[in-house]
Parts: sequence; structure tokens; C-alpha cells
Amino acid sequence: MTLRLAIVGLGKIARDQHVPSIAKTEGVELTSIASRNASIDGMSHFPDIETLLASDEAVDAVALCTPPQGRHAQAVAALQAGKHVLLEKPPGATVSEMGPLVALAQEKGVTLFATWHSRFAPAVEPARAFLADTDIHSVHVEWKEDVRKWHPGQAWIWEPGGLGVFDPGINALSIVTAILPRPMFLRRSDLQFPENRAAPIAADLEFTDATGLAVRAEFDWRETGGETWSVHVETAKGKLTLSEGGKKLALDGQPMVNEPDAEYAGIYRRFVELTKTGAIDVDLSPLQHVADAFLLGRRHVVDAFVEA
Amino acid sequence: MTLRLAIVGLGKIARDQHVPSIAKTEGVELTSIASRNASIDGMSHFPDIETLLASDEAVDAVALCTPPQGRHAQAVAALQAGKHVLLEKPPGATVSEMGPLVALAQEKGVTLFATWHSRFAPAVEPARAFLADTDIHSVHVEWKEDVRKWHPGQAWIWEPGGLGVFDPGINALSIVTAILPRPMFLRRSDLQFPENRAAPIAADLEFTDATGLAVRAEFDWRETGGETWSVHVETAKGKLTLSEGGKKLALDGQPMVNEPDAEYAGIYRRFVELTKTGAIDVDLSPLQHVADAFLLGRRHVVDAFVEA
Repeated sequence: MTLRLAIVGLGKIARDQHVPSIAKTEGVELTSIASRNASIDGMSHFPDIETLLASDEAVDAVALCTPPQGRHAQAVAALQAGKHVLLEKPPGATVSEMGPLVALAQEKGVTLFATWHSRFAPAVEPARAFLADTDIHSVHVEWKEDVRKWHPGQAWIWEPGGLGVFDPGINALSIVTAILPRPMFLRRSDLQFPENRAAPIAADLEFTDATGLAVRAEFDWRETGGETWSVHVETAKGKLTLSEGGKKLALDGQPMVNEPDAEYAGIYRRFVELTKTGAIDVDLSPLQHVADAFLLGRRHVVDAFVEA
Repeated sequence: MTLRLAIVGLGKIARDQHVPSIAKTEGVELTSIASRNASIDGMSHFPDIETLLASDEAVDAVALCTPPQGRHAQAVAALQAGKHVLLEKPPGATVSEMGPLVALAQEKGVTLFATWHSRFAPAVEPARAFLADTDIHSVHVEWKEDVRKWHPGQAWIWEPGGLGVFDPGINALSIVTAILPRPMFLRRSDLQFPENRAAPIAADLEFTDATGLAVRAEFDWRETGGETWSVHVETAKGKLTLSEGGKKLALDGQPMVNEPDAEYAGIYRRFVELTKTGAIDVDLSPLQHVADAFLLGRRHVVDAFVEA
């Protein structure tokens, strides 16, 4: 049976990634849009999820692509109505709000899937398998991009709960937490806040794990010379480098993986699988690390950020 | 068999609360102190926990009363040495660091007890029992004290990881999370930072739960007219007020509980019980709410704080 899916929040990520990936995935069909301003020709349109759920539109599942601050109430409404729910990353504005959501999904017997799209990048599983089997000496994460290019006009991203540079940085954290063999935890957090913004534009973090592994992560939104989305791991078997956000993997410069992006196709394949049994897949560790980074963060004030 | 206990970090809380409470508790005996500068006459003294553990001093358990930023490494050392561990609140500087600690305690078969002393206040259990059985309309937490009086010279408390006003505020959160029938989560966080400090001096928080309950919490360290440590709960059966940090409980002004403080005696009674089976008691929800309050917090800058 094909899953009839509504997208809630037809913004940049929904148009760029969700819509084309759903079209390519067997077992799921995009039937409806709930979005204040945007619509797709030939598809049922509703101004918001409440109107959609109150209508007689037949949907089995919703994908929440709205900003994280409002997603909790939308997820509750969808789960209460017995719909499977897919959450864009980050899954919410706080860690604590996720517990009641998981409990509600369990009660209703439907799927709740907190997605981390970067974990579906082609280099991630090979990197995990490689690192499971070798001594790791150190990890260095560089996640640098131009906020003006990648988040044009997204005011919510600078608001509390919008995460600032952790919006891309949490992708790196979702990869690192997936490929390292042991849980890591934060030891130092330095955050750079533009003097006119409520969220950081850069972060410098030091993590470790139970074996004392040094994991350094540098996130920066002021990179105008092209993107760097890389994880470098020094190991007993050589230097493993995951780059281009997980499209490429190399060992001592020798390519191991080099595949086109298929992250959101992977997400929707997994979502279709999960909904067959109403299974729940909610891993909060990337968001937990971000919360810890704010909790332990030392604030540094830097130049104002002006969009235009 | 009496538990031979070492206190690590002989500061204000250890002297004021731990030492006298241990003396009053059956089944545990204070035998050693690890503290850089302080000691107790007639008791073995070590400069730090590493020296203590490397010595032939016979201890079964340690109570970590040091600032939270350094507590993780001390807890690891103690657990590795097979000692039971009691953690003052907050249990660590981040939420994520607690997972590996719990895993290590399990591996070693020893007790790890993340204490929340306010939960042992006499009004807490009666309040929980009352609220389990009545409709709750709203909750208002007021936790206000004079930082100069209660935390004289504690520089670490203003550093990242020291929590600022959440150091007392987390006591309120430990009570509220214990007495409410359902988990709550944060919706709004406004934090006031002195312009010369890295931690907040006041916080105004709004939580809710799966039923939409309104929980407001106000923490303030600038209260010089005496302390207010109260939780007010409007219920279908009247207004329940927990005050004086949990020593008193009243319904519509009629006293239900009015007992002297015995929080730390309660902690040590429970610790002795836990160590009999190597049980673990680690509830991170109060610290999780604080991490969320920083994550979602809107920062407001207020007057500089000068100690003297």
C-alpha cells in the first residue's frame, strides 16, 4: 500500500530535497501540501496542518519541514490524528520535548522518525565500518559554509531555538555520532555570536570519550571561499577523510567512496520501512550535543551579521 | 558493614551539609578527605582524589562535592577503582557526559548516585502524592535569593558549566520534575546575563506538558530581602504551596507539612541503601531542562555583577 504523504512547510529544504526524493521513492506518494504561502500545482493545498487534519483529505503520514521552534505542536496534532510523522532536523527546539512525543507515537502505534539526513550520505556507513575495526587517534571536524548562500533570508535560524551555525553543524554531529564506536561528550565550547544576533555564527568544540579520544569540531558560517564539510580521522591504519558532507571517503588520499548525493532518498526509503510496523526511530544525541554546547559555551562577541 | 566514605572537595556545601549528615547516618562513616586546601582534624587527608586512590587508604565510596566542571574525571577515577560514587548536584557539566559514567558504574557493579538534595525535603513526597490525584491548573515557581549571601566568593559558579542562577534554580527544577505527574518541557527561556559574567543572574522560563499545563519558573539571584524558594500549584482542590525550599507545604494557606530540613540525611540514607546492591540512581531531567534553557534561551544583558 502506498503511503499518502503531506509535506508541512514548503520552504527551501522541502522543494530542493523532499519533493524530488519522494517522487523517486517507491511506497510513498506526495498528495498534499500544508504551507502558508507556497503550493504545488495539481496538489491539494492547506494553509496549515490543523486545517489539513480537520479536512477529509486522506493522508497517512506527514513530513514536517517547518522551522524547529513550531514543530512540536504540529507533530502532536499529527500523531493525535494517527498519522506517521517524519521530522526534519533538528527534531525540535529542546531535547526534553521529544520524550512526550515518543510516548504519544507509541500510544498511537504510529511511526515517529527524527531524521538526520547526513547519516544517509554514502560515505557514512563505510566510515563507521572502517572505524569499528581500527584504533582511532584523533578526530577533526571542519564544517564551514557561507550562511548567505545556504540560508538566504532565513530569519528563524538566528532566533533562539534556530541554532545558528549549529543548523549545519548538527549535520556534522549526526555523522560523527554515527561513525565513532563510543559515545562522545563535550569538554569545551567556544561560541562566536554576532553582536546583533541571538545565535552563534561560529563554534569551536572539544569532545572526548571514555578512552580519552580528542575530537575537535569547528563550525563556521563566514566561509565565502566554497564549502568545507569534512571529518578527518587519524587512525592506526591511516588518515580517513570524509568530505563533501559524506559524498566522499578517502584513506590517505586514496578514494574509497565517491558517490552522488542520495541522502533524502535514503530517508524516505527508511520512513516507508518504519511505517510498515509503526516503528520509532528517534536518536537525540546530535541535538543533545548542541544543547550541551550552549550549556557549557563561552560566549564571544564578533562583528554584526547583516544579510544583504 | 559500615561504608567508609571519602569526601572530595571540602568546600561550603561539604562542611555545611555533608559532614554533619554523614555523622547522623547509620551505615556510613566519613574516614578521609581529598581537598586541595581544607582538611578535618583527625581525618586522613589527601590533596586530590588521584592521590587518595593511589594510596592504601581503605575507602568504599566517595562523595564528589567539587565544582561540576571537574567532577567527571574524578568520578571516572573513582568508578575505575571500584568505589561507589555520590555526585553533588548538578551531576556534571553536560548531559552527554553522564551516559559513559552510568555505563562504567554498571560495568564495575558499583553505585552511582546523582543526588538532587531538594527532592529529599519533607514537603516533596506529600506534594507529589497530592498532585497525583487532582487536576492541576497551573504551576508558578519562584526561586529567589541573594547570590552574595549564598555563594560568597564562588567564582566557578559564574563560569561556563557553573550554571549561574540555575545552580539554585536546578533545585526547584528537581522538585517540580519530582512532583508533577507528567514530564514537562520548555517553551520559552529568557536569561539575564550581567555584562561582565558568563552565566545568568536571572531566568524566566515557561514550560508545558502533554496536557498543555502552564508552568512558569522565575529564578533570581538579586533578591536581598530574604529568600523565596516556593512552588505554587493551582489545583481543583485548592492552591498548594511548597515553600522554604520544601520544608513547608500548605493547601489554601492551611499547613500540611512543616518540618526541619533533613535533605542530606535523606541523601545519605538512600546512598547506603543503593550501595547494598550496587544500584544506580541517575535522573538527568533537571540538568536536561537547564541545558534546554540555555539552548532556547534569549539573552538579555543587565548590570555588571561585582561581588564585594
